[in-house]
Amino acid sequence: MLIVMKPDATQADVERVLEVIEHLGFKAHSMPGANRTAIGITGNKGAVDPTHFENLNGVADAIRVTKPYKLISKELRPEKSIIKVGNAEIGGSELAMIAGPCAVETVEQVFTVAEAVAKSGAKFFRGGAFKPRTSPYAFQGKGEDGLKILAEVRDQYGLNIVTEAMDERGVDLVEKYGDCIQIGARNMQNFSLLKYVGKTRKPVLLKRGMSATLDEFLLAAEYIMAEGNYDVILCERGIRTFDTHARNTMDVSIVPAVKRISHLPIIIDPSHASGHNYMVNPLARAGVAVGADGLIIEVHPCPEEALCDGAQAQTLAQYEELYQQVKAIHEILAKEEMAIATG
Amino acid sequence: MLIVMKPDATQADVERVLEVIEHLGFKAHSMPGANRTAIGITGNKGAVDPTHFENLNGVADAIRVTKPYKLISKELRPEKSIIKVGNAEIGGSELAMIAGPCAVETVEQVFTVAEAVAKSGAKFFRGGAFKPRTSPYAFQGKGEDGLKILAEVRDQYGLNIVTEAMDERGVDLVEKYGDCIQIGARNMQNFSLLKYVGKTRKPVLLKRGMSATLDEFLLAAEYIMAEGNYDVILCERGIRTFDTHARNTMDVSIVPAVKRISHLPIIIDPSHASGHNYMVNPLARAGVAVGADGLIIEVHPCPEEALCDGAQAQTLAQYEELYQQVKAIHEILAKEEMAIATG
Amino acid sequence: MLIVMKPDATQADVERVLEVIEHLGFKAHSMPGANRTAIGITGNKGAVDPTHFENLNGVADAIRVTKPYKLISKELRPEKSIIKVGNAEIGGSELAMIAGPCAVETVEQVFTVAEAVAKSGAKFFRGGAFKPRTSPYAFQGKGEDGLKILAEVRDQYGLNIVTEAMDERGVDLVEKYGDCIQIGARNMQNFSLLKYVGKTRKPVLLKRGMSATLDEFLLAAEYIMAEGNYDVILCERGIRTFDTHARNTMDVSIVPAVKRISHLPIIIDPSHASGHNYMVNPLARAGVAVGADGLIIEVHPCPEEALCDGAQAQTLAQYEELYQQVKAIHEILAKEEMAIATG
Amino acid sequence: MLIVMKPDATQADVERVLEVIEHLGFKAHSMPGANRTAIGITGNKGAVDPTHFENLNGVADAIRVTKPYKLISKELRPEKSIIKVGNAEIGGSELAMIAGPCAVETVEQVFTVAEAVAKSGAKFFRGGAFKPRTSPYAFQGKGEDGLKILAEVRDQYGLNIVTEAMDERGVDLVEKYGDCIQIGARNMQNFSLLKYVGKTRKPVLLKRGMSATLDEFLLAAEYIMAEGNYDVILCERGIRTFDTHARNTMDVSIVPAVKRISHLPIIIDPSHASGHNYMVNPLARAGVAVGADGLIIEVHPCPEEALCDGAQAQTLAQYEELYQQVKAIHEILAKEEMAIATG
Repeated sequence: MLIVMKPDATQADVERVLEVIEHLGFKAHSMPGANRTAIGITGNKGAVDPTHFENLNGVADAIRVTKPYKLISKELRPEKSIIKVGNAEIGGSELAMIAGPCAVETVEQVFTVAEAVAKSGAKFFRGGAFKPRTSPYAFQGKGEDGLKILAEVRDQYGLNIVTEAMDERGVDLVEKYGDCIQIGARNMQNFSLLKYVGKTRKPVLLKRGMSATLDEFLLAAEYIMAEGNYDVILCERGIRTFDTHARNTMDVSIVPAVKRISHLPIIIDPSHASGHNYMVNPLARAGVAVGADGLIIEVHPCPEEALCDGAQAQTLAQYEELYQQVKAIHEILAKEEMAIATG
Repeated sequence: MLIVMKPDATQADVERVLEVIEHLGFKAHSMPGANRTAIGITGNKGAVDPTHFENLNGVADAIRVTKPYKLISKELRPEKSIIKVGNAEIGGSELAMIAGPCAVETVEQVFTVAEAVAKSGAKFFRGGAFKPRTSPYAFQGKGEDGLKILAEVRDQYGLNIVTEAMDERGVDLVEKYGDCIQIGARNMQNFSLLKYVGKTRKPVLLKRGMSATLDEFLLAAEYIMAEGNYDVILCERGIRTFDTHARNTMDVSIVPAVKRISHLPIIIDPSHASGHNYMVNPLARAGVAVGADGLIIEVHPCPEEALCDGAQAQTLAQYEELYQQVKAIHEILAKEEMAIATG
Repeated sequence: MLIVMKPDATQADVERVLEVIEHLGFKAHSMPGANRTAIGITGNKGAVDPTHFENLNGVADAIRVTKPYKLISKELRPEKSIIKVGNAEIGGSELAMIAGPCAVETVEQVFTVAEAVAKSGAKFFRGGAFKPRTSPYAFQGKGEDGLKILAEVRDQYGLNIVTEAMDERGVDLVEKYGDCIQIGARNMQNFSLLKYVGKTRKPVLLKRGMSATLDEFLLAAEYIMAEGNYDVILCERGIRTFDTHARNTMDVSIVPAVKRISHLPIIIDPSHASGHNYMVNPLARAGVAVGADGLIIEVHPCPEEALCDGAQAQTLAQYEELYQQVKAIHEILAKEEMAIATG
Repeated sequence: MLIVMKPDATQADVERVLEVIEHLGFKAHSMPGANRTAIGITGNKGAVDPTHFENLNGVADAIRVTKPYKLISKELRPEKSIIKVGNAEIGGSELAMIAGPCAVETVEQVFTVAEAVAKSGAKFFRGGAFKPRTSPYAFQGKGEDGLKILAEVRDQYGLNIVTEAMDERGVDLVEKYGDCIQIGARNMQNFSLLKYVGKTRKPVLLKRGMSATLDEFLLAAEYIMAEGNYDVILCERGIRTFDTHARNTMDVSIVPAVKRISHLPIIIDPSHASGHNYMVNPLARAGVAVGADGLIIEVHPCPEEALCDGAQAQTLAQYEELYQQVKAIHEILAKEEMAIATG
């Protein structure tokens, strides 16, 4: 932490700050400047609370320097984490494709999609049994019955099941039937739920909250990891901005930003980011090109009849086309990395 | 819903849309224009899903017209709701003052604040026993022990207790010890929790999510009311924007916007909106002047020693000054309303 | 500036940073901590460019400490600036009311409004002769003819004229006919125009850009003042956020934030901030309650026939009611301040 | 335009709306529903001003249907525009690479970069002679001297010069020395400047404003085209959001959104979007993958000594690596398109 004094701070003001720092057991480094004094703090473990200083006389600003996370950071674990999800991996050299309908509706719908995406090479299947809907009057998902259908998909097609849980009962059920527990954007700071999934032993797909900063996103992952579950996959799904041409603004820059700080894998959800069918393919390409470890894509055999989020769902043919394009882009990046690695 | 066709849509495209509308059991109203055709839909209860139309050939746009809420709306209940909280009311002619520390820390701290705010005329006391903290390593609240201290405050000072619950266990405890269940901004779209508090019989203080639109905010209240609990008080606590001079941007405009649509009371939290001690009083004044039904204010006997959010807490003297100012502003508005009412 | 090194930075990395600092002629203050080293910089006049450091090996972050403005700051001029506009003042003890139509349309319209607002006590009249319109096909204002009508208003009613200029020709004309040059939100970072009005001797009403931070806003004023024109009045008119219930989000918190740093007066434009007739009065009250030095309000004799922005214009009766309410609130604050001043 | 009546609107309210519509010379289409009446308007050229209706009794909402632009739209010109800039093109099958330093500083700096980027295959050179700087005390560019250096670069390396103008004098000079007039983000709604460049015969690179919506961006282009200059190239350079890990949030979704509506080419500026050296390459890849027609990249022989924006500038070696990667991605997309075209 750095305490910046006002230009008109008195010597007594400075000394009061030094006193408080020492009282807290830290070391103060005073730096008198031409216009004002700044005081560095060292010796702290973890972040210092700016509160202790902000309202003291003569203090202009208290600036955080140390970041508050540990477990997610490359400083702790320099090599990249590869997360095992069922019988496959996310974060390794292969691009992870998670495809499937927004919501589980019928056995037929789910199996039609599963067959197509399995054939095209996806290893993960998505589909919601519990749906967080803005309106209480909208379709809320099929619950445990939906999860049973997903479990059959795994048995029949060898696809690993990624599905959302919205509360503790849901987590218990997804743990039983699925392979990866998805925490939705609206629950990214539902800290009780984060702690609860931190105690399970299933990998967690953590979606970025609609207006979460990078630090808040990483600290949500830290909540899960602090409980002992280190298998966290991050997911960018678009942030809320003033823009209206897409449902959300897909923030591609978070991918290199995460990779600079954290060993955790990060994937992209272009379906929820865009909210429009015609945008999903280009945004998927952008996500892979920027360096994401995978994609999660909504696919529906008949989008205009979907019970939720049909507008953004890809048809089976569109998904196949999308997959061919992103695979080609991913191969270029992989070649590039190999070239760098073998230098 | 209004379907807007592209200028180059064919007659067959238009007819396909009309077909789908009829197939859904609604009534289509075709309006051919000079450049393009628009098609209105009537006969629907609740919102029509735009999904059914967006990807049809020749469709440019599907525009929502009907709003998806009912119970919160003045169309259902034209007169204003006055919510009973313990032995007092929120939403009536009196300005509701909810004051107290961010977190319950010690008996002494809590009682010192309670005595001061009770004396100055507050009828409600706030204080967190469960704290949603961005970092898992930050102070998480005293839990049930904190609630017991709050219950003693009620017994001794006759203050009604408003305190946050973050999960079902927390709701059960707040129901036992408190008078009003606060749902925090981060849980505004924790739909499982909203349904759960909807089944209790204690009033709910629902804080607006950091990036919640007006509709999302109202629909979160609708979730609670749809379960049978009609005692919902809305609370604006600042939204997330690009601004950095305040912790959040306090959106005063939501107060008249809510009052135009809904019968529910709405209060303002200038402490969390601003994050800075010096801003709390002016923002409190703005909140009352814009028409809020009350304020929730953080007060701490010694802000620089607070375990959380100290920077924004008011001292006892600052709170007293704030209260005198907002009371005077509230009286002006009350006089004005009476003048209008009595013509 | 504070340079924060990475935990794994080598001694050589640190020395390279120290070298660069000395090379730039500044003084380096090294603070080795348990996990990482931080290096303070003093001896600089003005802001140090973080560029010099960000890409050096081992550097984690370069954090600005000194603010880049001077002339706008209370450090330079502790007492509040009172700006003379025509024969009246903005920033003094009296609330400044600037009222009038969005655009000058006809002599009759302008005179009807001018008569009403002059009678109710406004000292300033607004009205656009040059209109910045999002679409090139929308009404662009009456130009010099409009300015001539405004000059007649001054002659007849003694109102001081505040009107927008969009380019150098416009500035010359407003200087000739008006009393205060308004720079619109869209031109807040039109630096050539800022420099040009900085060379005039008429006061400038500078509107905050739609997404301008506090620092950018103050630096835009600094641009004008750096050319020698110190008569700048700031104006908050709402910022762009994800919200849609108002046209913009009126940021009341900028008023105390500006007053903490700057001696310049700041007023509020609730008409453009809200975009809706029903919101203007409550937002005006909030603006005065938060401490603004004045209001700028759109008034139209017949809003539904206005050529631009009619939806938000107040009728003459609404304006009168608004004025009575904000005057009463302003009196409370004034009494309060006097009470503080006289101890 | 669609007028939505309130549920409690009277028949007289509806008739008043119908009257106003007819009075304006349009055709009204009344659609009585179960709960409320909606009224469609046809027969208008251009957008109808909602103002005429919003404050009428019984009106709940006035919803725009027709878009206000013409010249930029594919409805007017279905085939893509290819813009000639000097001796090369933007918007054709080849990826346009515009590279060069942020600001023109010295002949040596400019020529070093020009030689390198020309060799690697760029056809366009960027470099600012007029720099819009947030602070009046920051380096403001070399002016006409800088433009002369750029003209020499064209002569020597055959690179086409893209450079910013901030006012009319600047436009005249860029027209004289350069090949493409850049309008910066801060001037995107400087309508006087847009009209002025609309009267030149040099192509214009129009950067998206920091918080411009898609419609505002397209209408800014429309301003230029309405004056007769149809050679407009759009440029996404990041928008302002709550995010802080990048300087701006690069909005990749605007590329498919623009391409759906407009025939104009659109390029991406990952340097200004990110503000960080390490992010430029991944964001450049994302920009090309999403379908941009080109990139504008800051390159500096020695970024840590740059007079402005050094942190984000690529070294010559980084630029070469970036170029190889984006070229490979662009080839994949081109192959794909050809495959689709030849069916």
